[in-house]
Amino acid sequence: MKNKFLNYFSKISTLNAEESEGLVESMQTKAFKKGEFLLRAGQLSVDTYFILEGCVREYILTDGEEKTTNFFTEEQWVISSNATASQNAANHNWICMEETTVVVGNEEQGQALFERFPRFETISRIIMEAAFAEQRNALASYYTDSPEQRYLKLQKSRPDLFQRIPQYHLASYIGVKPESLSRIRKRIASSANE
Amino acid sequence: MKNKFLNYFSKISTLNAEESEGLVESMQTKAFKKGEFLLRAGQLSVDTYFILEGCVREYILTDGEEKTTNFFTEEQWVISSNATASQNAANHNWICMEETTVVVGNEEQGQALFERFPRFETISRIIMEAAFAEQRNALASYYTDSPEQRYLKLQKSRPDLFQRIPQYHLASYIGVKPESLSRIRKRIASSANE
Repeated sequence: MKNKFLNYFSKISTLNAEESEGLVESMQTKAFKKGEFLLRAGQLSVDTYFILEGCVREYILTDGEEKTTNFFTEEQWVISSNATASQNAANHNWICMEETTVVVGNEEQGQALFERFPRFETISRIIMEAAFAEQRNALASYYTDSPEQRYLKLQKSRPDLFQRIPQYHLASYIGVKPESLSRIRKRIASSANE
Repeated sequence: MKNKFLNYFSKISTLNAEESEGLVESMQTKAFKKGEFLLRAGQLSVDTYFILEGCVREYILTDGEEKTTNFFTEEQWVISSNATASQNAANHNWICMEETTVVVGNEEQGQALFERFPRFETISRIIMEAAFAEQRNALASYYTDSPEQRYLKLQKSRPDLFQRIPQYHLASYIGVKPESLSRIRKRIASSANE
């Protein structure tokens, strides 16, 4: 588990022995059962998580319905909005879809690490920039893609989700009712056979 | 103009004389006319902008239609996705809605500044986190809010846009046709009079 986290960082920037040690020392892991929440709407989002193993679904409850807005799996960050000025309560939920092991961090802990090893602040900034760009793409996809296009993109970018996540959550994420997802799948299957 | 930029940074973290000077030295401003583009879809998004004065509209061209996805005004960042691994061409456009003066920066220039003054990296990370949280809220709003709710939220959070931006761009941003926006406005006006 420790190596998994170190490997991830060393892909972004080469760490020296001291930095690697500092990272492992500061690293706190936590295990969640399937169905447990990392965050519930209404709570302050304080902790940020790095997924070592497992899957977290993000959803917003709106008009009594769960609208799935994201999935996070291995080597992905589940980022809190704590550092921002507003400090508003979260409007989203993070629930584990499987047994999930994460590294937990927060602003305070990050600060302590950045002071000892400034390079982690650079890495942190790079991670934030990538997360920002990814989110921008998600937003753009909502503006411009049809549900069918979103289905095809998801299939290409994250094929593992189709094995791990029940269909109705995928339908919600794509923005359609489960019945429509079945129709989309049939249409794609038949056009592939033509 | 220089003071405006310095003031913005000093709101996030107190700068010493050397840092202030370093920031002003590295600062490059650029003026754009109304209708000029900061970025066109298909180009690589390299530069990040801080708006000193003016207004930039972000839009995506989809099926021959401009879908407005954001507005940026004074003291807002127009953030490039250059630092990310993918380096894909932008799918969005940034066009000036007014005469606009910006500070221009890029990754290289940022790096040079961070090396001299590490505190700017902290500030940069904080700005990215705030931008990330803001974008998350925009995404959540698309998932959960009706166009009418989006109109009311915009009116509350950014009243100046209603003076600066033509109605049909606001309609596009809210996610409705211009005719529907007129209906929404009438409905809100009549319920305010009740």
